[in-house]
Amino acid sequence: MTYDSNNIFAKILRGEIPCIKVYEDDQTLAFMDIMPQATGHTLVIPKEEAVTLHDLSDQGAANLIKQVKRIANAVKEGMQADGITLFQLNGEAAGQTVPHIHFHILPGSILAARAHASTPSDQASLEASAEKIRAAL
Amino acid sequence: MTYDSNNIFAKILRGEIPCIKVYEDDQTLAFMDIMPQATGHTLVIPKEEAVTLHDLSDQGAANLIKQVKRIANAVKEGMQADGITLFQLNGEAAGQTVPHIHFHILPGSILAARAHASTPSDQASLEASAEKIRAAL
Repeated sequence: MTYDSNNIFAKILRGEIPCIKVYEDDQTLAFMDIMPQATGHTLVIPKEEAVTLHDLSDQGAANLIKQVKRIANAVKEGMQADGITLFQLNGEAAGQTVPHIHFHILPGSILAARAHASTPSDQASLEASAEKIRAAL
Repeated sequence: MTYDSNNIFAKILRGEIPCIKVYEDDQTLAFMDIMPQATGHTLVIPKEEAVTLHDLSDQGAANLIKQVKRIANAVKEGMQADGITLFQLNGEAAGQTVPHIHFHILPGSILAARAHASTPSDQASLEASAEKIRAAL
């Protein structure tokens, strides 16, 4: 699928739009979802330009899941979550809202969560969660 | 987390319980979810004994996502799905029902899907989906 370099995550990767960062390295960025479905809802994205999992390179997928695992551990510990839900939406028909592949790390159950991309959070709450997650990394 | 070698996926891996297989290699097994939330709902598991993503080795996670990606491509093509949802539940609090890590590959949106682990399907329907997915692999 053709990559739109003006999507919001591309702008975040270029530093044109701020994010509340949890982790960054040369291949990966993790930051707080600004419309968290539960407190501590974190996104992990590769820097590789890929719309969906289908478009991501094998090497990129392998690296991404290792970082997702590491950050999921920190979300679990930092947010003192009993369970962690991962989800990853490919295509508008699946509910994907930003056309740059991203893994969602959600404390708890999707059934107990707010709807996807529905409810903005205040920055202070997001920063408080981010600080707990960073401390557990 | 301690691994229970009597969980149903361990029994499937040992061949003690049948499954409708889509793909198998020395590290991975993919098969149809017998309670599909949508037609074509496929599970991908590592052979490594791990309860959750938190317990899986980095190497195991990297290999698993490469197979998930490959099989997700085949589910999309075989089921002619407009979108693909991945999800992966860690811990009972997240809704995990079998204590062996598994990725769900779901055609379409979770919002349009049936509830998790709720509705058994007939074998013929599962086999028909599996055949389409195998053909696309």
